[in-house]
Amino acid sequence: MKNLFEKNRLEALTDGIYAIAMTLLVLNVDIEKITEKVNNVGLYKTLVSMWPIFFSYFLGFFLLATLWLVHYRQCRRVKYVDEKYVWINILGLLFISLIPFSTSLISDYGNLLVAAIFFHINLLLAGLVFFWQWTYISNKNELLVESINANIISRMKWRNLLLPITSVIAIAVALVSPGWSMAVYMLIAPIKRFLLKSDD
Amino acid sequence: MKNLFEKNRLEALTDGIYAIAMTLLVLNVDIEKITEKVNNVGLYKTLVSMWPIFFSYFLGFFLLATLWLVHYRQCRRVKYVDEKYVWINILGLLFISLIPFSTSLISDYGNLLVAAIFFHINLLLAGLVFFWQWTYISNKNELLVESINANIISRMKWRNLLLPITSVIAIAVALVSPGWSMAVYMLIAPIKRFLLKSDD
Amino acid sequence: MKNLFEKNRLEALTDGIYAIAMTLLVLNVDIEKITEKVNNVGLYKTLVSMWPIFFSYFLGFFLLATLWLVHYRQCRRVKYVDEKYVWINILGLLFISLIPFSTSLISDYGNLLVAAIFFHINLLLAGLVFFWQWTYISNKNELLVESINANIISRMKWRNLLLPITSVIAIAVALVSPGWSMAVYMLIAPIKRFLLKSDD
Amino acid sequence: MKNLFEKNRLEALTDGIYAIAMTLLVLNVDIEKITEKVNNVGLYKTLVSMWPIFFSYFLGFFLLATLWLVHYRQCRRVKYVDEKYVWINILGLLFISLIPFSTSLISDYGNLLVAAIFFHINLLLAGLVFFWQWTYISNKNELLVESINANIISRMKWRNLLLPITSVIAIAVALVSPGWSMAVYMLIAPIKRFLLKSDD
Repeated sequence: MKNLFEKNRLEALTDGIYAIAMTLLVLNVDIEKITEKVNNVGLYKTLVSMWPIFFSYFLGFFLLATLWLVHYRQCRRVKYVDEKYVWINILGLLFISLIPFSTSLISDYGNLLVAAIFFHINLLLAGLVFFWQWTYISNKNELLVESINANIISRMKWRNLLLPITSVIAIAVALVSPGWSMAVYMLIAPIKRFLLKSDD
Repeated sequence: MKNLFEKNRLEALTDGIYAIAMTLLVLNVDIEKITEKVNNVGLYKTLVSMWPIFFSYFLGFFLLATLWLVHYRQCRRVKYVDEKYVWINILGLLFISLIPFSTSLISDYGNLLVAAIFFHINLLLAGLVFFWQWTYISNKNELLVESINANIISRMKWRNLLLPITSVIAIAVALVSPGWSMAVYMLIAPIKRFLLKSDD
Repeated sequence: MKNLFEKNRLEALTDGIYAIAMTLLVLNVDIEKITEKVNNVGLYKTLVSMWPIFFSYFLGFFLLATLWLVHYRQCRRVKYVDEKYVWINILGLLFISLIPFSTSLISDYGNLLVAAIFFHINLLLAGLVFFWQWTYISNKNELLVESINANIISRMKWRNLLLPITSVIAIAVALVSPGWSMAVYMLIAPIKRFLLKSDD
Repeated sequence: MKNLFEKNRLEALTDGIYAIAMTLLVLNVDIEKITEKVNNVGLYKTLVSMWPIFFSYFLGFFLLATLWLVHYRQCRRVKYVDEKYVWINILGLLFISLIPFSTSLISDYGNLLVAAIFFHINLLLAGLVFFWQWTYISNKNELLVESINANIISRMKWRNLLLPITSVIAIAVALVSPGWSMAVYMLIAPIKRFLLKSDD
């Protein structure tokens, strides 16, 4: 037993925090902002004018799901976790539960460089921590399930770098156009195809 | 292992998001709206005047529970999940965690066509995604538990269509009377009896 | 498989909703109410004057925990669940996730009869639903784990009635003194000792 | 079966409440406070001026994670739980879900003694309850997994006292400087090394 933990509760905490962060995003989609209008035209116009809020809700949800899938995919290779792995995971969760705030920032100030950079750096840090987590555990054979080889370890590293690389590109684009820098995350799928030919 | 995942964490994320969405509904039932009254008569009148808020709380809770049961019933037929199945599931969850917002919309503007249509379309999309999810996995025998036959697959499709069909009827009714279109969801039980004679 | 479900996901949804309801209670303990004071004396006085809010936080937390324990104790006797059991459970959860609202009501209007009655009826209904749930399943031997006998079934019924009985007493007391009716829930322990001599 | 429960649902409730408390912390990081500024400089200045809010977010998250790890480490030694253990656990969770409030208190009034003391006492009580929990169960051999010896029991006691001791030091420091008393929690790592030479 020594220093090793069953991973089940770490997964439970992680899934819980992801689930709550994903659902808290909807609190940014705030009905209070449309209190004045009482007819159909007014409500319709208000909902349409809220498109940046809906867009950032979808974006935040999609990026949280992407990061969750990185964790899902990484953790199923893991049999036991040690204390350092737990703490790296918790550091990642700290950035995950900050994402609803960062998303509300771009939903209100999406055309400002400062808001865009804050959002991208939040995602970059979350992504880098999960990359670090994999790098840390991938050479600890006693913590991994057996069926893992050097090729998979390397492919997993690239996979974990997928989001950080995209965030770096988004930061570069934000320097030119903060608003359009959000669209960079739609490049995740093609970048993935470039980095990883097959899938596993 | 290849591209297949154990389903346990996808279920955990899903249950978490449903649980939070169902509980966030209560944040719409807002005590702040009754700050002025300090006597029993005033408080009683305020609570009675809040009946559309309580009604939409019950409705939202019941519909989320219905969708959760669709997922529960579907997922127990599944042994492993692949990445596409996970992403379809996440798309469904995106619409699930939007339901507290849609519910607050009808709780405040329930007699407006735009609010009613927004609510019904949210449910329609959530329902259709879970229908898609079942259609996708139902012919992948390597992902399903063994005890499944063509008859069950077909019955499950109809079961998954139950809520989308009801939402379409609700949209039609909303064109005549937005307020009454909410009552359409009470038809789910009889429609189910019509579509599925026995139960499994 | 027919109509029977594994109980694990129903437990997960239930635990999730209890956990969220218990944590949402803290949102009633609102720091915004003490914005004006900036020195130690002012902050101290504000915190002391918030004692009804802290009291209702503790009360709501304790009652939710009591109801959760009823579910915990009941569900471990159960092996499989059917659809009706699931729906009774969901009805119970609907009243559970209303408790943060009821608690905020007594935290703001605890000396008003209407608020006290609303709170007690919410708990009464939650308790009665879980009593109904046990009554429903206790004579379905194919759904229960084996080691159960008529004596335990009967004792469990009384145990499930513990909270509803207390709520009825609280309603009676509220007619005389709404504020003191909250204290009735401290009688749960002695009432339990009266109803159930030994413990299991 | 008598009075003993499987621990899985108690762990699920605990993980859920920790996950929610950790994520609710982000609601204190409130975007509404920066509504006036619309240019980059203004937003940047606002974000920089929010550093006490971010600091208390990080601190609250880190301390909740520390307490969660205490529970994680304790509970894996446990095979079954009895009713008293469950109630001690629930008392601990009551203080855990109060931490987002205490954190918002120091994030707004961190330089006031009253706020600092409230925060430290909240952590002290949470820590002491989990210490009590371990003391209670550590001499009940029928509830523990087999591989436990007197040395581990004693080390676990010290480990569980780590946070309470730090909170007491923080209270002492707060009497001199409330603001700096938060920094005391950075001593957890060296104090731990002092109390526990090796790690298990």
